[in-house]
Amino acid sequence: MSLTLESGLAQIRFETLAECSVTRARAGLLHTAHGTIETPVFMPVGTQATVKGLTQRDLHDDLQVGILLSNTYHLYLRPGHELIARLGGLHRFMSWPNAILTDSGGFQVFSLSGMRRIDEDGVVFQSHLDGSTHRFTPESTVDVQLALGSDIQMVLDECPEYPVSHEYARESMHRTVRWARLAGARFRERMRALSTVHALFPIVQGSMFPDLRRECAEALLELDTAGYAVGGLSVGEPRPLSLDMVEATEGILPRGRPRYAMGVGMPDELPEYVARGIDMMDCVLPSRNARNGYLFTSQGRVIIKHARYKEDERPVDPKCTCYTCTSYSRAYLRHLFQSGEILYSALATRHNIQRYLDIMREIRHAIISNSFPEYLRCVRSASAEAE
Amino acid sequence: MSLTLESGLAQIRFETLAECSVTRARAGLLHTAHGTIETPVFMPVGTQATVKGLTQRDLHDDLQVGILLSNTYHLYLRPGHELIARLGGLHRFMSWPNAILTDSGGFQVFSLSGMRRIDEDGVVFQSHLDGSTHRFTPESTVDVQLALGSDIQMVLDECPEYPVSHEYARESMHRTVRWARLAGARFRERMRALSTVHALFPIVQGSMFPDLRRECAEALLELDTAGYAVGGLSVGEPRPLSLDMVEATEGILPRGRPRYAMGVGMPDELPEYVARGIDMMDCVLPSRNARNGYLFTSQGRVIIKHARYKEDERPVDPKCTCYTCTSYSRAYLRHLFQSGEILYSALATRHNIQRYLDIMREIRHAIISNSFPEYLRCVRSASAEAE
Repeated sequence: MSLTLESGLAQIRFETLAECSVTRARAGLLHTAHGTIETPVFMPVGTQATVKGLTQRDLHDDLQVGILLSNTYHLYLRPGHELIARLGGLHRFMSWPNAILTDSGGFQVFSLSGMRRIDEDGVVFQSHLDGSTHRFTPESTVDVQLALGSDIQMVLDECPEYPVSHEYARESMHRTVRWARLAGARFRERMRALSTVHALFPIVQGSMFPDLRRECAEALLELDTAGYAVGGLSVGEPRPLSLDMVEATEGILPRGRPRYAMGVGMPDELPEYVARGIDMMDCVLPSRNARNGYLFTSQGRVIIKHARYKEDERPVDPKCTCYTCTSYSRAYLRHLFQSGEILYSALATRHNIQRYLDIMREIRHAIISNSFPEYLRCVRSASAEAE
Repeated sequence: MSLTLESGLAQIRFETLAECSVTRARAGLLHTAHGTIETPVFMPVGTQATVKGLTQRDLHDDLQVGILLSNTYHLYLRPGHELIARLGGLHRFMSWPNAILTDSGGFQVFSLSGMRRIDEDGVVFQSHLDGSTHRFTPESTVDVQLALGSDIQMVLDECPEYPVSHEYARESMHRTVRWARLAGARFRERMRALSTVHALFPIVQGSMFPDLRRECAEALLELDTAGYAVGGLSVGEPRPLSLDMVEATEGILPRGRPRYAMGVGMPDELPEYVARGIDMMDCVLPSRNARNGYLFTSQGRVIIKHARYKEDERPVDPKCTCYTCTSYSRAYLRHLFQSGEILYSALATRHNIQRYLDIMREIRHAIISNSFPEYLRCVRSASAEAE
């Protein structure tokens, strides 16, 4: 099945290559102006126009990353989207040849900032850098992301904390839908004058209420966008709830468009999201955990500071082909970690991202070879065993 | 002229390829068990078994570093030389295929440690990590460096601060000579039982007193070592004095052996040392300055935080071929620096080390093509202009 989307806001093309006959998983190709991405895909996070500690060569040549995520909130504040635009856009600024997805900045405004005030038109917030006051509107965040030149952009949404009342969640979801319409209109208007190719994804919200999630997804359909995001996950809710929320709208969001679950997840959760029809994910976990000494392997987690690794000559993961694992021992990494050396962070991040990408490759291979249900069973039983 | 040194402590071979007819500069080859090194050479510093922020692949494949320096004091304390020995030695521990030079730890003991007490047999000091008490003797530091397996090792010396009295400097220098004899004897004894190839360099001391420097060099000659180091520089003395001290013993140290000036210098000082017969240098300046935002270029220094670089699309040094300069703009590096991103440190260090290695290549080329005096004049006039 191949779908070319030219209508509405569709600016990127998603192609389904294989579908699981049991779950909602599928493997596909996402065509962007900066390359074609094999899905399902995990996107490493480059908050400040850098995946912490990794060069663009590490990411491109070694890890073969096809798409990165960067944060609009951070780049808007520093160095500023206008500066990045004057320097030719984010790809050129950070020397990144492949695709870039940017969030709208909403999540950061709602989670990082001390002072923030929401009204119907947008959100006023204070910079975490210098306390200066700024305003994001649905329209301005489209403009900021177009200045960055990101391939896939997100609408400004309100991401409520967990838990909130059904009443507040509904009110907030309705605002998110209204904002998505305003962003969509701005995006369409701006795109008429641009020759470059971008996509805007609206975001399904509704806290942990399936009825609100469904209502939100239905309302966003009218925007006929090139893809859809599911937001408001990983805000402190129990894990099964996040998966339930994705499941709630899987049947509503068009099968022919890519679906992006924002900010997830742990290694054993990745196939769970894919099983629920998700094609794209991002998370700071592999890089943040790496820096904190937690390494993901095909055999479970390695906490590198543990004394048991002091003289361990084995690589972090003997099955891993990353530069870290083919070059260094656990003993050396532990020494670097204990010594506070930045090389530790770079090597550990490289490994953890490779692990996430390997998992996605395994998932994709399982879908294409029609063995995804079995793969999922294996992951679930290994995960149950580990607990 | 080619000299094979098999006598005494000579375990590495130094070959002179070209000599400057005006200055004491020469170009040569230093053959070690871990590769042949083109001299004059600058050795990047990997204090804790890592050049901060750089992978061994960066150093080997990109920067083509032939020899690194590592610090005995730091590795002795953490992770411990015995652990490194059990893991197959420092080369294997840090996955470094080329040569390694280690200092004796003396400099760190005398400069880093709070509590230290020198007696005739060695020095007692407290660890900067946990305050525990340790003792270094001329013999023990040979044993520690042999456990590390470094190709070129240093004798334990006393490195007096600046200034000291002639009387103290003489007393200290005599102790350094006595320690060098003890270290030499231990090294010879240990080498009889080892099949691996190592060299031990004694260190010329004598503070800023040419007579003591000469007396020290004369006394060390009897050790007939594969090379000689000049220590006690960069301890706060005026720059011209450091060069005078090197000059004082140039005529005494055998021309057929490599000479190593420890802990120098600024980019424009490198040819000055070479002009005074120095073949090897090391310094934390390129890496430390990189991390602090000071970048060395063929056109002078770039202080990356300066606002003038905010939208500067040029590479740090348009003439540089390093990965940093061929991939990133000053504007991007400034953004990373301002954001406190570790990628900045890695990229900046890479560039500054490349700059030092490029200078050494220029110097070597000038010596071989018989234009070193002219090269030196150019460096001096550019340097005078910059001041």
